[in-house]
Amino acid sequence: MDTGLLSLVWPGTGMDTLLTDEAWVEAMLSVEVALARTQARLGVIPADAADRIAEAAASARIDVADLAVRARGSANPVVELVGEFTAAVAELDEKAASCVHRGSTSQDILDSATMLLAARALRRTDTDLCRVANALARLADEHRHTPMAGRTLTQQAVPTTFGLKAAGWLTLVLDALERVRRVALPVQVGGAAGTLAAYLEDAHAAGVPVEGHAAALTEGVAAELGLPAPVAPWHTQRTPVAELGWVCSVVTGALGKLGVDVLGAGRTEVGEVAEPAGERSGLSSAMPQKRNPVLATLLVSAARQAPSYAAMLGQSMLAEDERSPGGWQSEWQPLREALRLAGGAAHTAAELAEGLRVFPDRMAANLAIGGGTIVSERLNVALAPVLGKAAAKSLLGRIAARAAAGEGTFADLLRETPELEDAFGDTLEDLLDPVHYLGAAGELVDRVLARKATLA
Amino acid sequence: MDTGLLSLVWPGTGMDTLLTDEAWVEAMLSVEVALARTQARLGVIPADAADRIAEAAASARIDVADLAVRARGSANPVVELVGEFTAAVAELDEKAASCVHRGSTSQDILDSATMLLAARALRRTDTDLCRVANALARLADEHRHTPMAGRTLTQQAVPTTFGLKAAGWLTLVLDALERVRRVALPVQVGGAAGTLAAYLEDAHAAGVPVEGHAAALTEGVAAELGLPAPVAPWHTQRTPVAELGWVCSVVTGALGKLGVDVLGAGRTEVGEVAEPAGERSGLSSAMPQKRNPVLATLLVSAARQAPSYAAMLGQSMLAEDERSPGGWQSEWQPLREALRLAGGAAHTAAELAEGLRVFPDRMAANLAIGGGTIVSERLNVALAPVLGKAAAKSLLGRIAARAAAGEGTFADLLRETPELEDAFGDTLEDLLDPVHYLGAAGELVDRVLARKATLA
Amino acid sequence: MDTGLLSLVWPGTGMDTLLTDEAWVEAMLSVEVALARTQARLGVIPADAADRIAEAAASARIDVADLAVRARGSANPVVELVGEFTAAVAELDEKAASCVHRGSTSQDILDSATMLLAARALRRTDTDLCRVANALARLADEHRHTPMAGRTLTQQAVPTTFGLKAAGWLTLVLDALERVRRVALPVQVGGAAGTLAAYLEDAHAAGVPVEGHAAALTEGVAAELGLPAPVAPWHTQRTPVAELGWVCSVVTGALGKLGVDVLGAGRTEVGEVAEPAGERSGLSSAMPQKRNPVLATLLVSAARQAPSYAAMLGQSMLAEDERSPGGWQSEWQPLREALRLAGGAAHTAAELAEGLRVFPDRMAANLAIGGGTIVSERLNVALAPVLGKAAAKSLLGRIAARAAAGEGTFADLLRETPELEDAFGDTLEDLLDPVHYLGAAGELVDRVLARKATLA
Amino acid sequence: MDTGLLSLVWPGTGMDTLLTDEAWVEAMLSVEVALARTQARLGVIPADAADRIAEAAASARIDVADLAVRARGSANPVVELVGEFTAAVAELDEKAASCVHRGSTSQDILDSATMLLAARALRRTDTDLCRVANALARLADEHRHTPMAGRTLTQQAVPTTFGLKAAGWLTLVLDALERVRRVALPVQVGGAAGTLAAYLEDAHAAGVPVEGHAAALTEGVAAELGLPAPVAPWHTQRTPVAELGWVCSVVTGALGKLGVDVLGAGRTEVGEVAEPAGERSGLSSAMPQKRNPVLATLLVSAARQAPSYAAMLGQSMLAEDERSPGGWQSEWQPLREALRLAGGAAHTAAELAEGLRVFPDRMAANLAIGGGTIVSERLNVALAPVLGKAAAKSLLGRIAARAAAGEGTFADLLRETPELEDAFGDTLEDLLDPVHYLGAAGELVDRVLARKATLA
Repeated sequence: MDTGLLSLVWPGTGMDTLLTDEAWVEAMLSVEVALARTQARLGVIPADAADRIAEAAASARIDVADLAVRARGSANPVVELVGEFTAAVAELDEKAASCVHRGSTSQDILDSATMLLAARALRRTDTDLCRVANALARLADEHRHTPMAGRTLTQQAVPTTFGLKAAGWLTLVLDALERVRRVALPVQVGGAAGTLAAYLEDAHAAGVPVEGHAAALTEGVAAELGLPAPVAPWHTQRTPVAELGWVCSVVTGALGKLGVDVLGAGRTEVGEVAEPAGERSGLSSAMPQKRNPVLATLLVSAARQAPSYAAMLGQSMLAEDERSPGGWQSEWQPLREALRLAGGAAHTAAELAEGLRVFPDRMAANLAIGGGTIVSERLNVALAPVLGKAAAKSLLGRIAARAAAGEGTFADLLRETPELEDAFGDTLEDLLDPVHYLGAAGELVDRVLARKATLA
Repeated sequence: MDTGLLSLVWPGTGMDTLLTDEAWVEAMLSVEVALARTQARLGVIPADAADRIAEAAASARIDVADLAVRARGSANPVVELVGEFTAAVAELDEKAASCVHRGSTSQDILDSATMLLAARALRRTDTDLCRVANALARLADEHRHTPMAGRTLTQQAVPTTFGLKAAGWLTLVLDALERVRRVALPVQVGGAAGTLAAYLEDAHAAGVPVEGHAAALTEGVAAELGLPAPVAPWHTQRTPVAELGWVCSVVTGALGKLGVDVLGAGRTEVGEVAEPAGERSGLSSAMPQKRNPVLATLLVSAARQAPSYAAMLGQSMLAEDERSPGGWQSEWQPLREALRLAGGAAHTAAELAEGLRVFPDRMAANLAIGGGTIVSERLNVALAPVLGKAAAKSLLGRIAARAAAGEGTFADLLRETPELEDAFGDTLEDLLDPVHYLGAAGELVDRVLARKATLA
Repeated sequence: MDTGLLSLVWPGTGMDTLLTDEAWVEAMLSVEVALARTQARLGVIPADAADRIAEAAASARIDVADLAVRARGSANPVVELVGEFTAAVAELDEKAASCVHRGSTSQDILDSATMLLAARALRRTDTDLCRVANALARLADEHRHTPMAGRTLTQQAVPTTFGLKAAGWLTLVLDALERVRRVALPVQVGGAAGTLAAYLEDAHAAGVPVEGHAAALTEGVAAELGLPAPVAPWHTQRTPVAELGWVCSVVTGALGKLGVDVLGAGRTEVGEVAEPAGERSGLSSAMPQKRNPVLATLLVSAARQAPSYAAMLGQSMLAEDERSPGGWQSEWQPLREALRLAGGAAHTAAELAEGLRVFPDRMAANLAIGGGTIVSERLNVALAPVLGKAAAKSLLGRIAARAAAGEGTFADLLRETPELEDAFGDTLEDLLDPVHYLGAAGELVDRVLARKATLA
Repeated sequence: MDTGLLSLVWPGTGMDTLLTDEAWVEAMLSVEVALARTQARLGVIPADAADRIAEAAASARIDVADLAVRARGSANPVVELVGEFTAAVAELDEKAASCVHRGSTSQDILDSATMLLAARALRRTDTDLCRVANALARLADEHRHTPMAGRTLTQQAVPTTFGLKAAGWLTLVLDALERVRRVALPVQVGGAAGTLAAYLEDAHAAGVPVEGHAAALTEGVAAELGLPAPVAPWHTQRTPVAELGWVCSVVTGALGKLGVDVLGAGRTEVGEVAEPAGERSGLSSAMPQKRNPVLATLLVSAARQAPSYAAMLGQSMLAEDERSPGGWQSEWQPLREALRLAGGAAHTAAELAEGLRVFPDRMAANLAIGGGTIVSERLNVALAPVLGKAAAKSLLGRIAARAAAGEGTFADLLRETPELEDAFGDTLEDLLDPVHYLGAAGELVDRVLARKATLA
């Protein structure tokens, strides 16, 4: 079993149990069963042989660690598994054993099993992303009017709202959700070199018409497994695998943005948000006062890794001939870990978003730090027609620099500057209020919520 | 100017001229013009100011190398460009100068410019991918019945057809084409921190109603540039950039598969295909006889790089606050090179696919190398009902090993094996003919061509 | 337990048992023991407390899967482990329990444990690399005079020897070995923020002089664990981790080159080498005749993945403040898998190199394929003084093209070309013999073997 | 010419002029000259031929953009360049023209040129890293006693000093410097397939003894270029290239850590450091008050990219046969950009480190934010012997939580807690002073400075 001790994004999130080595073995046997059932339905093998095969699969006890060592001999786990499984079927029924893996090839079994597991993992990920989307939509809605400092290149820039910030996080979750739903996870039914020749030979031997059998078999297996049928076998057309990598990367990237922002806004000196306070959550081994932002930390850790997994999977498109020596084998573990990071991150983000603590008072206090410099852009717009754009910007820049140097608050220094009297008169107080400089923040929140309504 | 001397996938393919530093400067000025025109249409600035701005943009002479050095001072190329451009407008019309870059921010300009250039590059890439698709469809159709050895893990496995091989290449090109067409390239209009506050302030100052102005402005700029409008600004919601990376990676990966297969099948000892024979193409600096597969080499080189560019761009989703310090800046060059590799690869693949030389005789000769071992899977299917599946496979394996050890041809050794007499009788010759063991190759070609018809 | 079913490079190679989650738990407890022993020796805690701690560690029974789930609460596995371990010590001796993890911090424990395991993995890797080096040196020596075709960009170029090819593989193994031996794996002893403050506080409380205690403690723990002491704590100076990634990548890259060459030279149509023939090795699930190059396939699969793991670990250098939120956590699983791929590849390569079957006859046959074109460079050198360099190359190129087009063998066409009579006279036969055009192959083999003698 | 407009880490840093396409052309011609000179010295070609070749190289005018387009025809820039260069020599001296590129191959020229340029780039990088090291050593020394908050996972943890922080940055710079100096940049002299056969043939034709010529030639060329000679040609033993990628990645990673810390400590709300204040540095296009941390931003942008470039270069070790079709070609642009990012980052970091502004007052103010919670670890150490370790930590955690909830300052709440009276008595004030809890910070600074003294 993979415990995830070194990849804490996913233990306990469902991604541990869904994607273990054992799960792969079970999924491979499920594919063998789906194949046998379809071949039975199409008349290639007897119906009771398919039943025996299903029975054997249900009761199979495979020593996975032993299988892994033996699997090195064929550079894939299927050859040895099929041998062991065939022997198990033979114990039930010698004839049924000859119907196992009929016409098939290792890659058909492993690729289909992988797609089956990926589909399960993505369904779970979808569910958790919807939880995140709902929680963020709630935050965006509730904090539609909560002002806070917008920050660019780490410096306070102009005001924004926490509602718009949450809507920005939500946008990414919706982006991820769309891509999770759009990904194709086709079954693989191609035979040794993608021509389905042995499948057809078996059909022919059983007196089943060969014409159209390839499509019927593929669609049958696909239906059994609840996966789409491809246009043609894709043994060395690895778009589905590469795209899964990309989709996992977009999920973790989307949630990683939430993570970095929670980390940034939660710094001791900023204090605008905090993670949900669990009994034992965020503790340090040494420092009694510490409450670490562990969920955000895990989100960022996932996002830092996933693009490189996607790169490995993107490389898998360089697949030679009808089966790649080395390309195919370099997909499996990276794909598993990418799925786990994505699913684990979605689960983690749901915990974070649903429990995020927001401190509008700290946002207001931070907004006031610069004594009004955060609206200097606005003053600039107001001043430009009077002094000219460049002169206005230059004057305000000098005053901001004096404020930063401690000569007085920005607001006071402005008030003491004669040129500004004419320009602003008694509108200065209003101009300096960040709440009056939120632009289209509210409208943008609405637009994002409207998009959300169509997806989650 | 970037000549591409060290990235030979793209010089002379259009990707050099489309995506130079100069092209970026022009595109940034185009965005300023689009913004000014939209603001003029909406009543925020005078119409003739927008005209002057457009005029100045058309005649701007920017020293790009000098700009690059100065741009380090703001960690983006926009601040200095706007300064220089504003001065140029001022020479035409002092008042118009104050209307340049109104309410805007560096990231609006650069992101929109990047999307504009990406759109141009992808259009060119689409065109070249269609050329590739057409050429491959022709090959698939023409070679529907050309048998060749299918190879898995470098070893001859079972027969296939060159038509199906071409259809496999085509499948990937269609995968790439779909994704190129699906990618979103939204304009960026957000202002300093994504609230459009200064844009609205400018509108308000000009007596233009603020409500709905954000949407009108965004849609107006988008229409001017021929790009879609986003739901909301995406300064730190970098899905579009990350997705461009993925799309470039899928294009190069798709074509890289064509490349590796041409390399493999074109090895001196295999000789089944060759690159188009140009006058000076594929020459060596030292060896008179050499004709190197240079186009395939370039395709593979693109495919080996692009996934890492995609990884860099995937990392860009980790964008802090309202503008990322370091994330945004690490996108530009990788994205440019990724677009160039994709577009250059599409162009290169068109040359290759349109001129690919195919040698069916060599395919037939290679198919015969094993003296029939290539259909041993078929014999196995035929023999299994007689001897049992495992015994059949084992017997055939032993005979194949004897053939490999030089004890005779596989066919002869088969004929001398008594157990096989009963099983095969006089069907052996037929069973040994690879042309009779092509499975559904023809049907699969048809299915891929049908898909192609919907796309290219 | 991690079985490696999806990462077949390493099951059964030692990298499975050395680097399990359980191994990490044991290593972390070993670090706690090393710390306690050192503190006891330095007088900070009682000697018998250290004994109890060691005793508890030796008998600890940790449910790793459960630990992994709980560890999410602190975003590292140490906090919960220390809690559980302290309770176990308390059952032996209440007082000793208060001496567990004294002054320490999670990162000290996990980083030191990781270095300890990395050191073990690299020692095993070193041993296996030496086996590879010895086997390749033997091949280089034995085949010093075995001619074969040198190939560039997939095409036969000029002759070389199999000895030099093996020496090339050996070169890379030596490169890898040097880097494996050079890597620094320092212990981590820093306390909460790298100042060792709590360690010193504990020393002070125990009446131990504080001056020099930091160095003494660090060196003590290092000595206990058999690791070097660093100049200073490196909580967010992640060179050691990034460098481990690089070293694993260079090991797999070095061996991946061996892999791709075995794959290329072992293609059915080339047949110059073959993998060691095990009873069940390289079998296909469907094709009786198949003997797949499984070891080479696994080597290539490792080499395709490792650089991306190294990239993830390289990113870990971007570590914020005194402990990175997300950077540190994204190291663990990638580092483990990188070590496994490197160690598994070394083991796999040893099997391959020690058993590689070499077929000089096939090498000779392939060398003859072009009917002499493989020495056209040599003819060119001979002809250049007579006809001029460009004219010579052009003439030979035309003759080679005619030979390729089937107009005759290259040698025959040469003999029929009047211009060449004067130039070559009766030396042509000699010039055409590839065995006479091996350059410095022998000398180069000697030089590489001499280097090998200093390392392995 | 590459201006770097999209990669602002390096324009104007020397990395632009050192590593242009033109520089590559010049370097390739330098290699041709070095080869000719060596061959003249060894008696293979006439001395005056070498002079003519040098003369032609000095006056060559190559249209690089045109060369790039033509170079696609051979998938490397050398074939066409040699053709053009030979013609240029021929204009000076027909006979000398026949001595150009004697016995050589494209890869010898390009690889040697690349190493030559890499050596120049690394020398510049070394110089700039030394500037950084000196500046950081100064900061570490000056701020040996400047207390500041140590932060882990974004939260204040325990006190540290700014001196130790600077020493941490310095550690990484020294790590980088060591690796820059250790990297091997060997010349490439192998001929068509790495046997030097044509070189030896040319020697033989000129009556020069062949034995030892390979070594003499290689060492001669190496000496001409100021590079080391390799043990053997390394056309497909790409350790030097992969290692350059790693070294660039460690340089940018080392400096990226400086970058992220400056960004974090320079946030508006933290304000502990600021970038050097240049006249126009860090300006925004819209916000008059803004002073963006542009140097740190550029450092981070380099560090986010370089590991992926290193991954591409690591992949280049998978080099087939005697020259890789696609592997070699995918090295050039990534290696160039990696060198530029490393060199540009070193230059940028020198600007940053030499001008960094440090604000001890803000450090002190931030240290006081938690009202003493920052030393709760210390209180824990003091309290543990009295209450037991777990009870002590739990009690202090509860008090810290009450302080965080606004019930009073941590110090006041401590004073009001009866259990603590006995424990602390009147030592509480002392215990609460962060300046008394700096551990071995001073010693560690000294150790790092001592290491620095040996390197820079």
